[in-house]
Amino acid sequence: MSNTAGQVIRCKAAVAWEAGKPLVMEEVEVAPPQKMEVRVKILFTSLCHTDVYFWEAKGQTPVFPRILGHEAGGIVESVGEGVTELKPGDHVLPIFTGECKECAHCKSEESNMCDLLRINTDRGVMLNDGKSRFSIKGQPIFHFVGTSTFSEYTVLHVGCLAKINPEAPLDKVCVLSCGISTGFGATVNVAKPKKGQTVAVFGLGAVGLAAAEGARVSGASRIIGVDLVSSRFEAAKKFGVTDFVNPKDHDKPVQEVIAEMTNGGVDRSVECTGNIQAMISAFECVHDGWGVAVLVGVPNKDDAFKTHPMNFLNERTLKGTFFGNYKPRTDIPGVVEKYMNKELELEKFITHEVAFKDINKAFDLMLKGESIRCIIRMDA
Amino acid sequence: MSNTAGQVIRCKAAVAWEAGKPLVMEEVEVAPPQKMEVRVKILFTSLCHTDVYFWEAKGQTPVFPRILGHEAGGIVESVGEGVTELKPGDHVLPIFTGECKECAHCKSEESNMCDLLRINTDRGVMLNDGKSRFSIKGQPIFHFVGTSTFSEYTVLHVGCLAKINPEAPLDKVCVLSCGISTGFGATVNVAKPKKGQTVAVFGLGAVGLAAAEGARVSGASRIIGVDLVSSRFEAAKKFGVTDFVNPKDHDKPVQEVIAEMTNGGVDRSVECTGNIQAMISAFECVHDGWGVAVLVGVPNKDDAFKTHPMNFLNERTLKGTFFGNYKPRTDIPGVVEKYMNKELELEKFITHEVAFKDINKAFDLMLKGESIRCIIRMDA
Repeated sequence: MSNTAGQVIRCKAAVAWEAGKPLVMEEVEVAPPQKMEVRVKILFTSLCHTDVYFWEAKGQTPVFPRILGHEAGGIVESVGEGVTELKPGDHVLPIFTGECKECAHCKSEESNMCDLLRINTDRGVMLNDGKSRFSIKGQPIFHFVGTSTFSEYTVLHVGCLAKINPEAPLDKVCVLSCGISTGFGATVNVAKPKKGQTVAVFGLGAVGLAAAEGARVSGASRIIGVDLVSSRFEAAKKFGVTDFVNPKDHDKPVQEVIAEMTNGGVDRSVECTGNIQAMISAFECVHDGWGVAVLVGVPNKDDAFKTHPMNFLNERTLKGTFFGNYKPRTDIPGVVEKYMNKELELEKFITHEVAFKDINKAFDLMLKGESIRCIIRMDA
Repeated sequence: MSNTAGQVIRCKAAVAWEAGKPLVMEEVEVAPPQKMEVRVKILFTSLCHTDVYFWEAKGQTPVFPRILGHEAGGIVESVGEGVTELKPGDHVLPIFTGECKECAHCKSEESNMCDLLRINTDRGVMLNDGKSRFSIKGQPIFHFVGTSTFSEYTVLHVGCLAKINPEAPLDKVCVLSCGISTGFGATVNVAKPKKGQTVAVFGLGAVGLAAAEGARVSGASRIIGVDLVSSRFEAAKKFGVTDFVNPKDHDKPVQEVIAEMTNGGVDRSVECTGNIQAMISAFECVHDGWGVAVLVGVPNKDDAFKTHPMNFLNERTLKGTFFGNYKPRTDIPGVVEKYMNKELELEKFITHEVAFKDINKAFDLMLKGESIRCIIRMDA
């Protein structure tokens, strides 16, 4: 055990005191891990749109002050009672959703929506005692999706940590904690294009580019990127995107444009925007007889998916996925191995890097749409 | 070749002269089969709701006079030019949709929606020359879905005939031409329940009972039948239905009733009514994480399928199927073998039998909801 085990650790964390206001670097106290919990030293974290979304907290339950962050790589510092799978020194990726290995979902081969540890964006405390492990001079600071990686040390439920190959570079594989696995898994685990098939990807942000990467790795013959920002096409080519459609450039619905380009529709589509109209288009653009559309982007609370039922009867399939259907502990170590074996490229997702003290720059880059992924180095 | 080959055959047929009026037994002339066509002597035919639907022709393009009928068993009388797969004497099931074996759909492992021979309910003529092979004193009588089995002899495209085991009793396996294969295939080919899983079946007509039979054969632990007619439950037990829900008996939506009965939802559901609200319920009643809903029933032209997209994001799948995803020529002979091997029971679907001259009685029985399948004996 490390000599900090069982002790409160004082360290730096970037605290969101209020919605939409720049994070403030603070010294925080991080309590020791309790039953089934693990304290992790974070080495690298990256910024995902979901952090920005809950930082802006528009239409969300505001939970402040809070330590955001959920894409990261770190090393186990100490473990709480009952933790047998991890020990100090293990390399881990925190995951915003968990795998208890006991519930019906964890026992199902098909689901990764753990009953116990499924993402809960409103909860700012640990499950064990309903309290936070973070404080500043006695004031609790809330957790975020069980990860809170914008801190040099954080505490997580053991079910939210994937133990990975210690040789994997944490400054690269940290991006597999969320967005990249979500998009890549949506294609390879759910849409499952066959070699030579055509794939449409709606939304060319990080998740959509990862979906395209999944199509490229699967041997798709043609990958059609759909985005409202035409300048994204150039960068998307690196991820295998061969054709680009901007719905704004056409008078007819984009599903009709795609059907004309592909003699009746694409074989697979993956929707990564969360826009309801894009979801409907992504479904209606797949070929009858065998087309499969996969929804990844998170919709608004009052959205309605609407289509003519004959679109289903004509043998189209619509599926949704959460975290690319990966089980965090069981599957993510294997995705890291795919990177190690050069089956999956991660470097091209990483467009920027900043020191921890400059974390607000990472927010600026994402808000301006300039970054795909910005790595935040905790030691700098 | 038979001695009638190449000749016009005069025989009995039940002709629908007008929408909704009793069929009239007539002597018709049946022309010889042309290129890629086959003339078949029908021995048994059965009545399906689709015959009644196009006989009533409510909201449909009226195509009269017409010879209806599409579930049947017969023997090849003669073949036209280019037909090499069938010869006189072969036992066949006519199928209302075809398999050309040349188009993208036929070449896809996943689709059975042949581009050339896909069901066309508005067409009353043969593809080869756009003409009918039936006439009465020179007046053409229209075909129905390429089969027109309410005639002692009929002419079909070779792609609409499944060549089956000559030992199979045609008075039983004729029901595999349409409804029973549609429901059974929807479950075993598309919903694919695993042994021990729960299945909900919406609509306990012939197709729904066949879907239940598919669930029973798959080893489902619990089969929940949903129907607005409670008296159907008793008969449904023979098809493996263990529980019954009549939506009229509950104040809350049936999907909520089913979720409560099954700790969160069934593993699979199959919708066999075509009612849009039943389609939505069938989708929303499957369990998150792994639930699969399959739509079979044909909706109205102006229906809209509407649900919250989170129901997909929570890892539910919605698929539609046509003819149980069976390819008519490739797969139906194997379904006949399942009956021969006693893996699939057909006798329990057959509730009535009438002589050909009494065919209107079969319509009465179906309209009164008294029959599941009524076999019409052509020789009686």
